[in-house]
Amino acid sequence: MPHPALPTLTSQLPAGTVVTDPDILAPYRQDRAFDPDAGTPLAVVRPARTEEVQTVLRWATEHRIAVVPRGMGTGLSGGATALDGGIVLSTEKMRDITVDPVTRTAVVQPGLLNAEVKKAVAAHGLWYPPDPSSFEICSIGGNIATNAGGLCCVKYGVTTDYVLGLQVVLADGTAVRLGGPRLKDVAGLSLTKLFVGSEGTLGVITEVTLRLLPAQPTACTVVATFGSVRAACEAVAAVTGKIRPAMLEFMDSAAINAVEDKLKMGLDRTAAAMLVAASDERGSSGAEDAEFMAAVFTEHGAREVFSTSDPDEGEAFVAARRFAIPAVEAKGSLLLEDVGVPLSALADLVAGVEALAAERDLMISVIAHAGDGNTHPLIVFDPADPDMTARAERAFGEIMELAVGLGGTITGEHGVGRLKKPWLADYLGPEAMELNRRIKGALDPDGILNPGTIF
Amino acid sequence: MPHPALPTLTSQLPAGTVVTDPDILAPYRQDRAFDPDAGTPLAVVRPARTEEVQTVLRWATEHRIAVVPRGMGTGLSGGATALDGGIVLSTEKMRDITVDPVTRTAVVQPGLLNAEVKKAVAAHGLWYPPDPSSFEICSIGGNIATNAGGLCCVKYGVTTDYVLGLQVVLADGTAVRLGGPRLKDVAGLSLTKLFVGSEGTLGVITEVTLRLLPAQPTACTVVATFGSVRAACEAVAAVTGKIRPAMLEFMDSAAINAVEDKLKMGLDRTAAAMLVAASDERGSSGAEDAEFMAAVFTEHGAREVFSTSDPDEGEAFVAARRFAIPAVEAKGSLLLEDVGVPLSALADLVAGVEALAAERDLMISVIAHAGDGNTHPLIVFDPADPDMTARAERAFGEIMELAVGLGGTITGEHGVGRLKKPWLADYLGPEAMELNRRIKGALDPDGILNPGTIF
Repeated sequence: MPHPALPTLTSQLPAGTVVTDPDILAPYRQDRAFDPDAGTPLAVVRPARTEEVQTVLRWATEHRIAVVPRGMGTGLSGGATALDGGIVLSTEKMRDITVDPVTRTAVVQPGLLNAEVKKAVAAHGLWYPPDPSSFEICSIGGNIATNAGGLCCVKYGVTTDYVLGLQVVLADGTAVRLGGPRLKDVAGLSLTKLFVGSEGTLGVITEVTLRLLPAQPTACTVVATFGSVRAACEAVAAVTGKIRPAMLEFMDSAAINAVEDKLKMGLDRTAAAMLVAASDERGSSGAEDAEFMAAVFTEHGAREVFSTSDPDEGEAFVAARRFAIPAVEAKGSLLLEDVGVPLSALADLVAGVEALAAERDLMISVIAHAGDGNTHPLIVFDPADPDMTARAERAFGEIMELAVGLGGTITGEHGVGRLKKPWLADYLGPEAMELNRRIKGALDPDGILNPGTIF
Repeated sequence: MPHPALPTLTSQLPAGTVVTDPDILAPYRQDRAFDPDAGTPLAVVRPARTEEVQTVLRWATEHRIAVVPRGMGTGLSGGATALDGGIVLSTEKMRDITVDPVTRTAVVQPGLLNAEVKKAVAAHGLWYPPDPSSFEICSIGGNIATNAGGLCCVKYGVTTDYVLGLQVVLADGTAVRLGGPRLKDVAGLSLTKLFVGSEGTLGVITEVTLRLLPAQPTACTVVATFGSVRAACEAVAAVTGKIRPAMLEFMDSAAINAVEDKLKMGLDRTAAAMLVAASDERGSSGAEDAEFMAAVFTEHGAREVFSTSDPDEGEAFVAARRFAIPAVEAKGSLLLEDVGVPLSALADLVAGVEALAAERDLMISVIAHAGDGNTHPLIVFDPADPDMTARAERAFGEIMELAVGLGGTITGEHGVGRLKKPWLADYLGPEAMELNRRIKGALDPDGILNPGTIF
């Protein structure tokens, strides 16, 4: 039984934009958080232009229908979970890009994949740094909506640092241009930055102006294994206090073994921790940094240290690190955490997770963007085992509480979505939560944009 | 005749915090925009702690009294202009700093000078990059309130890129903590970034957590003179398309001559333009970049090119560039512009300003942070000459209109303040202006925070 208002929307948009076929709808119900409470939307709407997004939102406001904006659905916090009676607004058809090599900017529609942006700008000798592990399958619009992180953030910062301008469509259908291809612009409030990371709760991003860098120099890579997690974490801080590595990644014993099970690379299965680090400093400085990191790792008791300036060899280790999540996932279903702490608390966080795993009798593998203190504890469980599932869910919350107790955050780069909403108010405190609500109320007074995410 | 509510405030704060002595008040009436319409405040309040700032704002809300937050009063857009019947809230007594070398962050109160922050972190081998030309006399709180720029932005970004967390006091006296010493944190809306650049209109910043970098490597400096402004601007784009200079500054003929009048450095008085560029890439890459830039400058017709890896020699040219504003100021009073354009429009902007200067029969000297397209046309006039003053004021607006016509902004790094408010709505457009107003209304419903600035 279609919603009585739906034909009005369909008639205002190009043929095929509004989809109600249940088979087509099904994969739009969830993102990669696989929220079991996901609803069934009235329709998936796939606009190709800003004006069509405006039409959708005007209609949604008129009929008080919830709109869930969606990129490629790779989010891990449930921020693109469909609602019963709502619509899903997918940006997948919005795929234009224009690169300006003189201003070193690109104007991009939200549906392009991160990897496609990287490729298009590389054709002009330029580089878009942000590199979430899902870069080959996630959309740039989703990256902006979640202020996505990645591996290179330790040196190059996060998505917001590359967003110079946005076009957004507000809940009432108004299209607004914010910022643009200017490296400095302080005219009015910093609204561009406010929309980055707003998870579809303040507006729908229909165009973005990205800041680009010259092509990244080839990296030198250092891989080290440690007998102790604490020693590895202390080595991380010793590195970042002195130099700016382009990558500084951590895998614990469970992750090393899970990857080795699949890739058979000859990783040391007895190691407690492995670091994969890189420097992309130019000329001989990259090799110097690699040597410095190797020396720091050795001083901190590394058992094996391997350095290479061969990009393919280096990439093999980065790929191993990127492969850790699917490799651990082979052991069972995952609850994927995303807590971050100040770097000085990294060792305590990992130790605390280990203690929790023992206490709750669970396998929890920790991988981390160690250089910026952002960790992904992977809680393995069997959904067919209700007791284990309950223990896993309990551990999921306890890890956030552990991180907050260490001065950390409940989410470093994945976003709050629906999954982490129950912990947000405690983390932010009543004053900051109220401030969030005031902004939300000012921009989306009817609450039609992604209700249940963040708020 | 003191305001009847003032004794209530005085009684709630430590002795000496509320100042009403007219001789002490006088210098707090204006900032460096020297707004002739500045009022006389009821009092200057100089709190030392966040709790005292809360007391002030609770009182101001209760009595509907306007509060003008003030750092060191070095702003150039009149954002710290006192109002009749209002108070000035000076952060000058809030001067604590704590540096954490492990997390590479500093927690700073707003009244510390930018130069003092740089010095305190340098003692730990760390570096706070943002470097407005006024860095020796401007406060870090003011830098954050205006999202200040500077010379190193072309490579290192602007103030917001270094702000990880804030404590702000809202109009109603609520203190809110946003963000903190975590390099990645996406829990809730990006409110930290919203307050950066809000020019005291949304809240009073009482503490900031800054991201720091390892100490900057020594720079190699290249100075070149050109017979044509256009050739110099084209050389700028040719450089930034390929490498990341740490500085890329421009001075026109008038600025060169004004500096030479004072400093007698032997600058080429017949040159149309001079570029001062630097690379701080490590090892031999800095010298390589300097060589590359020198070659680009030569290709673009530079008349003289001088390179040095000696830091003192390099600093002499940077100092000359920094000295350009006072040197031009020796020719008369200044209206100091701050327009920015996409880099591809830089030559057209400078040519347009030259044409305007001829048309309005004015001396307008252009200096620029050329690498990021941010220019400071300096309009020289004699305030005793009403006709000239009127032409200067007219040119001030026309330069903004010129920049906006070239895809640029009315303010790159100084802020809107009171001075540029008349041009803001046209620049932003009605939709973005309305969005600014909605946020302002949500956070400061009574409009007591810095009324007349931005809004």
